[in-house]
Amino acid sequence: MNKTLQMIRDYGHEQVAFFNNEKAGLKCIIAIHNTKLGPAVGGCRLYPYACEEDALFDVLRLSRGMSFKNAAAGMPLGGAKGVIIADPSQKTEALFEAYGECVESLGGRYFTAEDVNTTTQDMDWVMRKTKQVVGKATVSGDPSPFTAIGTFDGIRAAAKMLNGTDDLHGVKIGLQGLGHVGFDLAQQLVAAGADLTVATHSNRKNMEAMLALGAKELTDAELYKAELDILAPCALGATLNYETIPELRCRAVAGAANNQLLDEECGVMLKKRGILYAPDFIINGGGVINAGQEAYTVYDKENVLKQVHNIFNTVYDILDESQKTGEPEGVIAQRFAENRIKNGLNA
Amino acid sequence: MNKTLQMIRDYGHEQVAFFNNEKAGLKCIIAIHNTKLGPAVGGCRLYPYACEEDALFDVLRLSRGMSFKNAAAGMPLGGAKGVIIADPSQKTEALFEAYGECVESLGGRYFTAEDVNTTTQDMDWVMRKTKQVVGKATVSGDPSPFTAIGTFDGIRAAAKMLNGTDDLHGVKIGLQGLGHVGFDLAQQLVAAGADLTVATHSNRKNMEAMLALGAKELTDAELYKAELDILAPCALGATLNYETIPELRCRAVAGAANNQLLDEECGVMLKKRGILYAPDFIINGGGVINAGQEAYTVYDKENVLKQVHNIFNTVYDILDESQKTGEPEGVIAQRFAENRIKNGLNA
Repeated sequence: MNKTLQMIRDYGHEQVAFFNNEKAGLKCIIAIHNTKLGPAVGGCRLYPYACEEDALFDVLRLSRGMSFKNAAAGMPLGGAKGVIIADPSQKTEALFEAYGECVESLGGRYFTAEDVNTTTQDMDWVMRKTKQVVGKATVSGDPSPFTAIGTFDGIRAAAKMLNGTDDLHGVKIGLQGLGHVGFDLAQQLVAAGADLTVATHSNRKNMEAMLALGAKELTDAELYKAELDILAPCALGATLNYETIPELRCRAVAGAANNQLLDEECGVMLKKRGILYAPDFIINGGGVINAGQEAYTVYDKENVLKQVHNIFNTVYDILDESQKTGEPEGVIAQRFAENRIKNGLNA
Repeated sequence: MNKTLQMIRDYGHEQVAFFNNEKAGLKCIIAIHNTKLGPAVGGCRLYPYACEEDALFDVLRLSRGMSFKNAAAGMPLGGAKGVIIADPSQKTEALFEAYGECVESLGGRYFTAEDVNTTTQDMDWVMRKTKQVVGKATVSGDPSPFTAIGTFDGIRAAAKMLNGTDDLHGVKIGLQGLGHVGFDLAQQLVAAGADLTVATHSNRKNMEAMLALGAKELTDAELYKAELDILAPCALGATLNYETIPELRCRAVAGAANNQLLDEECGVMLKKRGILYAPDFIINGGGVINAGQEAYTVYDKENVLKQVHNIFNTVYDILDESQKTGEPEGVIAQRFAENRIKNGLNA
């Protein structure tokens, strides 16, 4: 049974387009969730989905998430996502040119970008067929530093809520992951005087650098149980789950990873344990703020930084409302984004 | 299980887009089968499909048919179709304006038009949101006369193949249906001196007019069994089926109805019985030739008529090839259209 229309109605999408280009071997789905605030922006994920159903679920879920993320970041942009059903080993110029034709065919409603298993090189091929690409290497460039800056601001907001000041000197922070964003963030935290503990699976070189800067090391399992002011997940998703939440000895969670809560119930559990939570799609919005600007105005780094720094206020306001109402922060953040989509950015 | 990508790959589509506009109550699917020859043209059907699956099958089947029809008619146009899932009683201005936004969002790749359960009034509402509409009342106007003219030409081609001359004087023709097209055609046939017999379910007034012009009347069941040179189905689909074909006493079938063969096997049966068949999507192309011109050039009635009259040659050539090779005419027509889509209109 085909239930695409039923599903997009349930998810609140405007449009889902399926594309087939036999010659280029391209099978892809582009989901446009909402364009009320502006053209829809979201990356292009390439993945060898086991079945079409999985790809459809993923693109619907991710594109809706982009609507909320873009609206919460205060951008005049809607949310969308593209998925290409392929193995990374099947990547070719022709595949991405064909994908560019798909993006172009949507009449300006969708801007694509690199995402899981796609690179700026791939996007160069896409750009042969469409100008609807953001996060261009030659314009806004690497988004990671901006994600790190925004996350640093969100951590300061959490510190202010905990301690009455955003001064991070001596604040005990546990950081998970030393990738592009995590390593950048770790350096900022050390420079700000934080008492930093780090766990990483693979980035030994970055870990050595952090240890040299005075950070301590723990395993992931140890980090969850460590006595911390702030836990900053900057690697895996679903780190806040039924196993870890009861073990946590931090006072707040504020990190850059996507989808930190396994499910909504985990947000309720955190709240019941009295642990503050900076909603992931708010605090990690720096990268999309940087790339997204290409879609609606002339790129201006100063302007981007101004918007990224505003993450401090947004996170603080959400933590504050949650303290006052007892509602989980994720629920408040979601309502904040939905309200903006419904009533405009100044609502 | 969702199988949209699999289905569009099987049908050879480029794109299928699902749209949801909750506010306007619009659920629709637009299928773009092929744009190799040019932007895709096909009507918008509104129907209370029992389920989404039925709507998807219909739009895939009909849009593919439009690719073949447009290519066979010699137009630089691809094939597409739109379906709106609704009851005719639910038709509103807002619904068609929302549909217009969907058409507009496809970036010029699709031209829509009136079809089953939609009217030129509905298309006026669509045109508030997009210029991608053909068959406009103020430009190419009513397509029925052009369908009738093309069908008349196809009947002459069949007569020439049967009798060595396209002179219709005394040629025994049985016509089923006296709607817009059928009635117009019947008048041309009488004027050309044909020996006309007519069956109709409902158009009593038109039947009286035809009787006054010297036509004879039969029931549908009688018409199938009547000794005729040419049977011209101009009403229902699937009139050529396992029940009727063994009963036929005509020498050729050439009429304006859509989907006259119940299935491909019925084309083989006709051939085995030695009955010539003018493929429906070739002989009834006059209407789409008239409307379609709006999509690629300035509308010019003389030009349209020239193209419509070319149906004579196309039908004759297909009948001729079928006589020589023994292949069913429908198979030859399909290959003719596919070859044009693959290799261009001059192929």
